[in-house]
Amino acid sequence: MSDLDAVLARVDADLDAAIDRLFATLRLKSISTDPAYAAETRACAEWHAADLASVGFDASVRDTAGHPMVVAHNRSVAGTSVLFYGHYDVQPVDPLELWEHDPFAPSVETRPDGSRMIVGRGAADDKGQLMTFVEACRAWKAVTGKLPIPVTVLLEGEEESGGVNLPPFLDANTDELRADLALICDTNMWDPQTPAITTSLRGLCGEEITIHAADRDLHSGFYGSAAANPNHVLARIIADLRDEEGHITIPGFYDGVPELPRALKESWAKLDFSTQAFLGEVGLSVPAGEKGRSALEMVWSRPTCEVNGMGGGYQGAGFKTVIPAQASAKISFRLVFDQDPHKVRAAFREFVKARVPADCRVEFMEHGSGTAAAFDTGAPAFQKTQGALTAEWGREAVFVGGGGSIPVTTLIKDKLGIDVVMVGFGLSDDRIHSPNEKYDLKSFHKGIRSWVRILAAL
Amino acid sequence: MSDLDAVLARVDADLDAAIDRLFATLRLKSISTDPAYAAETRACAEWHAADLASVGFDASVRDTAGHPMVVAHNRSVAGTSVLFYGHYDVQPVDPLELWEHDPFAPSVETRPDGSRMIVGRGAADDKGQLMTFVEACRAWKAVTGKLPIPVTVLLEGEEESGGVNLPPFLDANTDELRADLALICDTNMWDPQTPAITTSLRGLCGEEITIHAADRDLHSGFYGSAAANPNHVLARIIADLRDEEGHITIPGFYDGVPELPRALKESWAKLDFSTQAFLGEVGLSVPAGEKGRSALEMVWSRPTCEVNGMGGGYQGAGFKTVIPAQASAKISFRLVFDQDPHKVRAAFREFVKARVPADCRVEFMEHGSGTAAAFDTGAPAFQKTQGALTAEWGREAVFVGGGGSIPVTTLIKDKLGIDVVMVGFGLSDDRIHSPNEKYDLKSFHKGIRSWVRILAAL
Repeated sequence: MSDLDAVLARVDADLDAAIDRLFATLRLKSISTDPAYAAETRACAEWHAADLASVGFDASVRDTAGHPMVVAHNRSVAGTSVLFYGHYDVQPVDPLELWEHDPFAPSVETRPDGSRMIVGRGAADDKGQLMTFVEACRAWKAVTGKLPIPVTVLLEGEEESGGVNLPPFLDANTDELRADLALICDTNMWDPQTPAITTSLRGLCGEEITIHAADRDLHSGFYGSAAANPNHVLARIIADLRDEEGHITIPGFYDGVPELPRALKESWAKLDFSTQAFLGEVGLSVPAGEKGRSALEMVWSRPTCEVNGMGGGYQGAGFKTVIPAQASAKISFRLVFDQDPHKVRAAFREFVKARVPADCRVEFMEHGSGTAAAFDTGAPAFQKTQGALTAEWGREAVFVGGGGSIPVTTLIKDKLGIDVVMVGFGLSDDRIHSPNEKYDLKSFHKGIRSWVRILAAL
Repeated sequence: MSDLDAVLARVDADLDAAIDRLFATLRLKSISTDPAYAAETRACAEWHAADLASVGFDASVRDTAGHPMVVAHNRSVAGTSVLFYGHYDVQPVDPLELWEHDPFAPSVETRPDGSRMIVGRGAADDKGQLMTFVEACRAWKAVTGKLPIPVTVLLEGEEESGGVNLPPFLDANTDELRADLALICDTNMWDPQTPAITTSLRGLCGEEITIHAADRDLHSGFYGSAAANPNHVLARIIADLRDEEGHITIPGFYDGVPELPRALKESWAKLDFSTQAFLGEVGLSVPAGEKGRSALEMVWSRPTCEVNGMGGGYQGAGFKTVIPAQASAKISFRLVFDQDPHKVRAAFREFVKARVPADCRVEFMEHGSGTAAAFDTGAPAFQKTQGALTAEWGREAVFVGGGGSIPVTTLIKDKLGIDVVMVGFGLSDDRIHSPNEKYDLKSFHKGIRSWVRILAAL
């Protein structure tokens, strides 16, 4: 039996224990965006450092101005060195009442078709995914006493909350983190049978605006019409963000957004993608964005603007005839190609200010910035990874775009000057960021096996 | 000493005890719109029935399909019979963090200028106001052993939550409640020195809409642009409700809204009203409604549409890149003259439906309807009441319009066929429906004395 086959067999034999280890981190409420969970977020970092140490890594928890990083090295062998990035923080869980089980009491559930899934907040994003890599290292270590190539692991605790402390951390630790290649496991398969390597991601510009009007809540009977209503001011701003064709109307927003290169467009056209199936899976049917573009093109290669949250006035049961003193919205822009998140933010702020009445004021709060990223799939690392994935899944791995934003990808590319290979085993129905998040047990199991093969191939 | 002087002296001597009685009802959390307070709302009704019984009324708590009514009779004398209406329910108290003290732990606070105010939820709206009438009856009873005219008291428990059970209750008890005249104490003074009789009120049509899009919350990176975002759909609907001139754009909305009669317009023009002062008091300066109309005209005689609450998606601390499954808004229309609330509601629903994408759906919830009301100030009861108020305050009482809605006014007018005299001692800075609601102790004290005089005059 070859080393590779022995390590794969070890993965199969150790699966139940791997699930138990994953459950241990899934139980930790590492909700980075909510200060109430700061202590538990740190506890999660410490758990991962201890777990990596148990695999033979030299692991440590590193303080930042926010939640800590975990850095772990195992570089006892020669070869192509890799920096693996994952994040141990998770999204908030509200609305809690829509969860079928406690989001932090993970379990394996069996579906009617016999397939099994790991259920809980973070199961897919990103604890389940990052543990596929850690478990692959554990199996190599257990069988051969070492890893096949030098590995450094970097786990972030603020990926879901802006990640403002990552750039200075990379700057301050460039030498320690330098490697030949970076690996990230925070993306999806193409479909449940087809593995994928994501070669482009959208950037992100997150912004919160609060419109302040009267200095107190007013009775709408006494002040209705006469007094500015911040709900109306906010609705007008949001409505004005798009025109009837679905274009975003902020001046200069599309600067740096070229039409898609023909080769990529043709490659994507070959993918078996159905807009109706994509939307139908979540109960929708009408593409909502720019008219005349496919949903795939919009999600992978076009910028967007989404109001992720908004609120103002009385939202409880019943009715209250109030004109609120303030209303606010959290808005994210997904960016592509050469869009500059700082320019987008500045243009958005001007756009908002122009729509705030003279007796109201607007308050802005920044929630993270990241540019888009794209890689050349012809590089050897991409070809080797594609081969390893194809061997594991019995179907050719495809190169895809990604609609989400993993700002670290651009940061690593820019600050360390290396390529980033994004491989992940999530599925589109994983409900990440939503109630009842899950990760298929098959994704977890074959994900570990995939990394075993990729580590060998590299 | 005349009976009247003796009763007024009794009011002065009994003021501290009257404040204690008011505090007893202010401590009861009769928030009618929130089902969590149903038991305490009933307890409040029972407190008022017992209190009225202590004044010699034949008082009872009457069940309805919602919160109960309190009905009390004291008709042992001959004369012009009156039906006094008040409401014992109160508005919700959120945002609780903006209250300086527990909203249900009332107190009397002294301002720097030496004036004193009663602070707590319901202090002005309407417990403090309704108790001015009850205390006036108590003083008459204590001094003369009887009331000067036959009195029936009707206290509602759902004025702040739609009042859907009042019309059937009036229908079922028309004979018992019939009187020559109705009195309501739920309105304001013109200014702190000038008493007012409100002779017109706006109607109300309350409606809640919920836009449902995908069958779950979505990740805005994966679905942004492609999937309908209910926050955007809702913002578009709200923004479309008004045009650039401030007109409401719902087809047929202004049916039944004439220009103001010249006589009334001239009478209002004589009032010492400053739009800048009116808005300046709450920190604003720019009239927000229809262009070319004064704030007074807008609030007293023009219909409006206000979003009292709206919300969708993540509103907690930090940021969450979600496209929510739903978003909702609570919207109230203030109606004037002959606007029909049912027609307005139907037209609004069509307006909304026309703006909901084909793959989304909208859910409507009704929150009460009431038409506008206006009375002829030449009728004897209005003249007598004006005289009594002028005598108490030493300044001629004025006839004013009102921007709020007291649907019971129209109901009593229509179902019992009698005039309604609206007298109240609230002030524009009472912060009703807002944190830190207060009622001036002077309003309470001289309000009681005013009713003592009005009961004598009628």
